[in-house]
Amino acid sequence: MLALCIQVKEILHQERSPYQDILVFESTNHGNVLVLDGIIQCTERDECAYQEVITHTPLNCHPNPKKVLVIGGGDGGVLREVVKHDVVEEVVLCEIDEAVIRVCQKYLPSMAVGFKHPKVRVHIGDGFKYMAENQATFDVIITDSSDAVGPAAVLYQVEYYQLLKASLAPQGIICNLVDSVWANEPLIRRVLTFLKDEYPSVGVATAYTPTYVTGQLSFIVASKQPNQNLAVPVRKWTQAQERRLCQYYGAEVHESSFIHPNFMRQLISECLSETSKVDHL
Amino acid sequence: MLALCIQVKEILHQERSPYQDILVFESTNHGNVLVLDGIIQCTERDECAYQEVITHTPLNCHPNPKKVLVIGGGDGGVLREVVKHDVVEEVVLCEIDEAVIRVCQKYLPSMAVGFKHPKVRVHIGDGFKYMAENQATFDVIITDSSDAVGPAAVLYQVEYYQLLKASLAPQGIICNLVDSVWANEPLIRRVLTFLKDEYPSVGVATAYTPTYVTGQLSFIVASKQPNQNLAVPVRKWTQAQERRLCQYYGAEVHESSFIHPNFMRQLISECLSETSKVDHL
Repeated sequence: MLALCIQVKEILHQERSPYQDILVFESTNHGNVLVLDGIIQCTERDECAYQEVITHTPLNCHPNPKKVLVIGGGDGGVLREVVKHDVVEEVVLCEIDEAVIRVCQKYLPSMAVGFKHPKVRVHIGDGFKYMAENQATFDVIITDSSDAVGPAAVLYQVEYYQLLKASLAPQGIICNLVDSVWANEPLIRRVLTFLKDEYPSVGVATAYTPTYVTGQLSFIVASKQPNQNLAVPVRKWTQAQERRLCQYYGAEVHESSFIHPNFMRQLISECLSETSKVDHL
Repeated sequence: MLALCIQVKEILHQERSPYQDILVFESTNHGNVLVLDGIIQCTERDECAYQEVITHTPLNCHPNPKKVLVIGGGDGGVLREVVKHDVVEEVVLCEIDEAVIRVCQKYLPSMAVGFKHPKVRVHIGDGFKYMAENQATFDVIITDSSDAVGPAAVLYQVEYYQLLKASLAPQGIICNLVDSVWANEPLIRRVLTFLKDEYPSVGVATAYTPTYVTGQLSFIVASKQPNQNLAVPVRKWTQAQERRLCQYYGAEVHESSFIHPNFMRQLISECLSETSKVDHL
């Protein structure tokens, strides 16, 4: 197995919430770091890659994203990114664990700044329940969750993706984390295989994420609109806007994040094809 | 600081050569791993990314690469990739440490298979001396070296790049490792800044490399041909050939490997511009 170590300068906060262990430490050269149940969630140094790709990829694939839902995302980083889109009228954050929000507001202010925007509404509660009560509502839903182990495992099941679909408005788009193909190929294979029966358009984007084991994260992007090429943003910023708004994401980065090494391209095409051959690479 | 750990199943070999400590171990799920002076060089599980990108990127940017030189590369993986190009007539590997070759032939046969090809010629000796004696000779020179610390540090100096240039045939192209922008931005900044005065066309490509800290490696590609867009391969395989020949590289991957996050694009453009502003990002 692989493991990633980040040097700790000082433990800033530690608590056991009703849902998980929450730890924040100051690292020697990656800024403050949020750790949930022993797994690094983000560091101030490189969180831009994750937050920007998981947010702007689905938002720029939607022609007119007025209502956005974020499931999880208690650090506020995704909110900070969503409100960069002037077209968005409201963004709801549904986080089960209020302690994460409280801790991040204190120790990760550069992310938690997202909570301060007037378009943001916070709902503390279970995402499953919230979506069941808010059907056909959201143009974009982003699931900013923990890994597919422990309590977040339910977010990697077909039932969750069906619930997302029901909560999406027509032509709605979702974006969900699915680990790295290098670290967890079986997970990506399983999710893609059931997704092709649920959503008419499905794609996989990747981003360089230095403080995640393998240095890569993959994101599922799926749309209710048939034959949508999710690798091509339907809305783009100018290069000057990109430089002002983003450290990582841009229209070219969007397109290239859907281009994959041969072995991964073959895996995706096997999983998404109707005949879905199961030859292992 | 960041550190990457790979679980050891069994130490297979350990020796001190006249140049470095050489260690090979079997890992629990990344195959056999080569370690030089305590730094992981490659694992059987993901070496394809590094070897294919450092080799096919420069070779496919050259219209007719007949003579290729590899400096370092004692594991044989780059040789294995070079000989996939039928147009290549001869590839010389210049490795200072014969012990690396001997150890890899025993413990990393899937890479060392490169040594068996009839187009390969091995020269045990110092790359600086070899290039000084072989001027204006090679169409492509690949430097497959260790990190920019210890004995390999001289490979990251302007004098080395001048020597490479002198050893290149007209229109020749080089490809060199330069760490990751996340891990060592100052190195990339320094090398690019002196390179722009040495080579008329310079580009930076990246590859996902899970068993390298930060999960990314960057490669300098530089050509003696003016105004060459190194992001666009001048020779391409068909998709069927790509699937047969490569696990990672392909023409689309080539192009996307030159597309960078905003902060890195800005860094590169600052370093390569004539006015070379030194604003720090």
